[in-house]
Amino acid sequence: MDVGFIGLGAMGRGMAANLLKAGHTVRVWNRSRGAVDVLAKEGAVPAASSRDAFRGDAVISMLADDAAVRAVILDERLIDGAPAGLVHVNMATVSVALARELAALHQAHGVAYVAAPVFGRPDVAAMGKLQIVAAGDPAAIERVQPLFDAMGQATWRIGDEPHRANVTKLAGNFMIVSAIEAMAEAAAMAKGHGIAEGDLLGVLTNAVFTVPVYKNYGAIIAEQRYDPPGFKLTLGLKDVRLALAAAEMAGAPMPFASVLRDNLLDAVAHGDAERDWAALARVAQRRAGRDGPA
Amino acid sequence: MDVGFIGLGAMGRGMAANLLKAGHTVRVWNRSRGAVDVLAKEGAVPAASSRDAFRGDAVISMLADDAAVRAVILDERLIDGAPAGLVHVNMATVSVALARELAALHQAHGVAYVAAPVFGRPDVAAMGKLQIVAAGDPAAIERVQPLFDAMGQATWRIGDEPHRANVTKLAGNFMIVSAIEAMAEAAAMAKGHGIAEGDLLGVLTNAVFTVPVYKNYGAIIAEQRYDPPGFKLTLGLKDVRLALAAAEMAGAPMPFASVLRDNLLDAVAHGDAERDWAALARVAQRRAGRDGPA
Amino acid sequence: MDVGFIGLGAMGRGMAANLLKAGHTVRVWNRSRGAVDVLAKEGAVPAASSRDAFRGDAVISMLADDAAVRAVILDERLIDGAPAGLVHVNMATVSVALARELAALHQAHGVAYVAAPVFGRPDVAAMGKLQIVAAGDPAAIERVQPLFDAMGQATWRIGDEPHRANVTKLAGNFMIVSAIEAMAEAAAMAKGHGIAEGDLLGVLTNAVFTVPVYKNYGAIIAEQRYDPPGFKLTLGLKDVRLALAAAEMAGAPMPFASVLRDNLLDAVAHGDAERDWAALARVAQRRAGRDGPA
Amino acid sequence: MDVGFIGLGAMGRGMAANLLKAGHTVRVWNRSRGAVDVLAKEGAVPAASSRDAFRGDAVISMLADDAAVRAVILDERLIDGAPAGLVHVNMATVSVALARELAALHQAHGVAYVAAPVFGRPDVAAMGKLQIVAAGDPAAIERVQPLFDAMGQATWRIGDEPHRANVTKLAGNFMIVSAIEAMAEAAAMAKGHGIAEGDLLGVLTNAVFTVPVYKNYGAIIAEQRYDPPGFKLTLGLKDVRLALAAAEMAGAPMPFASVLRDNLLDAVAHGDAERDWAALARVAQRRAGRDGPA
Repeated sequence: MDVGFIGLGAMGRGMAANLLKAGHTVRVWNRSRGAVDVLAKEGAVPAASSRDAFRGDAVISMLADDAAVRAVILDERLIDGAPAGLVHVNMATVSVALARELAALHQAHGVAYVAAPVFGRPDVAAMGKLQIVAAGDPAAIERVQPLFDAMGQATWRIGDEPHRANVTKLAGNFMIVSAIEAMAEAAAMAKGHGIAEGDLLGVLTNAVFTVPVYKNYGAIIAEQRYDPPGFKLTLGLKDVRLALAAAEMAGAPMPFASVLRDNLLDAVAHGDAERDWAALARVAQRRAGRDGPA
Repeated sequence: MDVGFIGLGAMGRGMAANLLKAGHTVRVWNRSRGAVDVLAKEGAVPAASSRDAFRGDAVISMLADDAAVRAVILDERLIDGAPAGLVHVNMATVSVALARELAALHQAHGVAYVAAPVFGRPDVAAMGKLQIVAAGDPAAIERVQPLFDAMGQATWRIGDEPHRANVTKLAGNFMIVSAIEAMAEAAAMAKGHGIAEGDLLGVLTNAVFTVPVYKNYGAIIAEQRYDPPGFKLTLGLKDVRLALAAAEMAGAPMPFASVLRDNLLDAVAHGDAERDWAALARVAQRRAGRDGPA
Repeated sequence: MDVGFIGLGAMGRGMAANLLKAGHTVRVWNRSRGAVDVLAKEGAVPAASSRDAFRGDAVISMLADDAAVRAVILDERLIDGAPAGLVHVNMATVSVALARELAALHQAHGVAYVAAPVFGRPDVAAMGKLQIVAAGDPAAIERVQPLFDAMGQATWRIGDEPHRANVTKLAGNFMIVSAIEAMAEAAAMAKGHGIAEGDLLGVLTNAVFTVPVYKNYGAIIAEQRYDPPGFKLTLGLKDVRLALAAAEMAGAPMPFASVLRDNLLDAVAHGDAERDWAALARVAQRRAGRDGPA
Repeated sequence: MDVGFIGLGAMGRGMAANLLKAGHTVRVWNRSRGAVDVLAKEGAVPAASSRDAFRGDAVISMLADDAAVRAVILDERLIDGAPAGLVHVNMATVSVALARELAALHQAHGVAYVAAPVFGRPDVAAMGKLQIVAAGDPAAIERVQPLFDAMGQATWRIGDEPHRANVTKLAGNFMIVSAIEAMAEAAAMAKGHGIAEGDLLGVLTNAVFTVPVYKNYGAIIAEQRYDPPGFKLTLGLKDVRLALAAAEMAGAPMPFASVLRDNLLDAVAHGDAERDWAALARVAQRRAGRDGPA
């Protein structure tokens, strides 16, 4: 397929590389040039402009946040001028409000739109093993399924309205960071009874929580290995904020999310903004009077 | 081995039955007589008294809570009169304070004491597939390991001081109910955006949280199947209370546990005391203005 | 003095009327015409446009929220064209972010700017008994002090940077709604022990909390008199949101504010959006299983 | 009147002294002898035993906590042997569970029982200006009213069942510490915007919260004057715990109380156990990354 790819950050570059490996033609664009050059060496075609990427059979965008989507796609009015037959696949984690706005805008301009945020860190993206959650017109999803197959391990369809995929992604990230916080609090409690984090979480992630998300973050907490981050704490704070905003739209209190927001702010205030979001464990230990090394 | 077994509730009867199947002699005692008769038909020896059960190679106690342990074991001064060589294996979920008190008491009377609380519901106990967390004198654990092998799928040793196993059990239950609450809040938020609980949790427990604890409770929430309970909400409230008490001993704030306590009280106040603790999902939906069927 | 007045809502009309009573010339402007006509009968001069109001010795703006300030003042570029010598007094409750933006903008255009949000409900505004919190250039405040004297019982100066007054206002509203929530939770607890809200709060607001803010809201809770609202719950939710945003800028967790946000959402989800924010007491009673009349 | 007085702590000694000043005969008893000697110099009669104090027209007990009441009154079976006509006035802050137990016990033995906890710190007790909340048989209260008049500024009757006074006291202390926490969070937020605690709380306690409880604690926070404590943080934690227990009996969630419990534990973990409970302000500042002097 002839595919545009906009946004070559830590996630995007691995995803685009896997599209190339699968034999697709990929026109890549990025706000800074470095990542474009790297992918060009792997066979990608540098796009002349973001608009030049926004054409072909499909265009995938993987931008950092709402602001980036607004700057690169909306402000540039890329949707207005999209060619007939193009499917825009937005794989970024964006707010539910923007997700709804984008869906309406594509519909107004007759452009097929699929929201397909992913679960998986950059190393998983590089391996083409992402979990993809897709929502949108089934026919459009069908057309881009080969692209998903190249980038992901599985695609989970969650309905016709694109924002449903974004809600699911935010719900999932909220559940992940809730799991981290639960381990953090449990470890702080156990530590006060003389049990090391690694002993406690080693048992519990082998006896009950036998799943990578717990094992990986449990190991990070046990080894206090917050640098370099797999997922930056400030990005986690952003996603918790988006979950709270989505909950407010839905009229739903989310007391766990409120606790998470407060604790992530505490972490930022103590210098952990750029560390892995599992540094929530440092907050729990600090509040119990046990300050770890900075 | 010659084993006493005290406490034949939903968990204990399955555990004792598996000891019988493995060929052990089991003298059983229970406060009410019915369960004793049932197990006698499977080959157990009815004990004449709790003291008659508290002898042999080992005695296993599986009582409901701190109060039951006090009434059956401490008030009857069973430890004082225990015969030489007996290993007392306490597999119940008790407070850390009582765990420490029991350890000191056994030591004072020269009785070997192992704390070995379990993960798994009654059906898992009946299958002999429990996850057993054991702490105590390694030699004593070694002696009762054949019993653990008959009742459990795996035994996780967490050190020499018995209370460490109880801390680990409370930490684990806290993590389980935190997982339930996270699903409950995520589902309430998603529902407000038109996504059914089953759709949301179906995707997330297949894409990310691929582990029975999430899959089982996710299904219960999706199907609103809170009766009969797998684990009664009031028992869950008791365990959260024990976790909070253990945290207070440790000087550790546990804001998630505080939220859980409040939400479980809300559930009790709305008639869900005897339902499965996954009825936390009803609290989250109700607070968002969506009252489910009672 | 020659004063423009922009924003004749429930608060603004009383404030403008008191300026008239004190003998000032008041050119009034409002987005909807009705309030202008009412004040014209009391001697106000209808302004031809918002720009026509934004001149003279001073202009007071009392708009509903950030969006209204943006629409009426920023989008219309009123600051750019302000005449020399004008003091703009913004008495609305706005976000700290907008407060800082407004201060920078006025400075850039050489227009004197005073932030002066107020404490007091519409009836207090009508009596000219508001508590005014003012921040800005002391000379500018000095010039408009006669206006404050006409509208308020006291003026509290809190420094030279205008946003300081807005921070103080948000902090004060947060403290007020925290007082309401504390009464709500105390009353829900006491009710379960057979004590009526009125009995409990009657004693406590006479013995300890002998101050109007507690007495008034205590009486509202005791009498379940949430209609008509003195201060609408959705406005309270907006202010809690602004406090949380200000706290996030400051890197400060505010767990009470997080609880308030969740509980106010719960209230909105149960139909109390347009009631007095003391309807938080209905949330506390409902969560305890005691549903009051809708 | 002929009055026994049991418990001469910081509060009790001032209260007993005021009874003496009012001309009553006061037989005093205390677990440690020092306070007895001091009061003897002011005219009190040292009681030979706690039982010797538990007679006459009335006996007032002002013991530290539930455990002290159990040890001094219940374990000694003082109620069983109380002479006819005695009114026992329990002015201590005890749990609602113990309050109910005591009421039942007195009734069973035909001893008049009044619960009369107080608001006011030791200096207020010494001045005879306490706020007394009384519940019990109206005739019994009537008989001891002269004693209340000697110790307090006002007596607030809250019904016939003694536990009602204890519920009211716990509700009041919860509202006080909620006020402290609200100021603490507001101050931490404002500090991040450059506003000193004293400036913020100075304005707000003069403009809105014009009542001693806010002014006093606001000043303590502004001046960071946590030593010596007016009310020790660990006592505050105990009272929050009692409020949570009372709420649990009542089936009422109290999310503010949950936050307070967590934050008070945080304070204890950071060395503030013996400081004034307004040291909650240190928790709020620390969580925002601003560590004050220890």
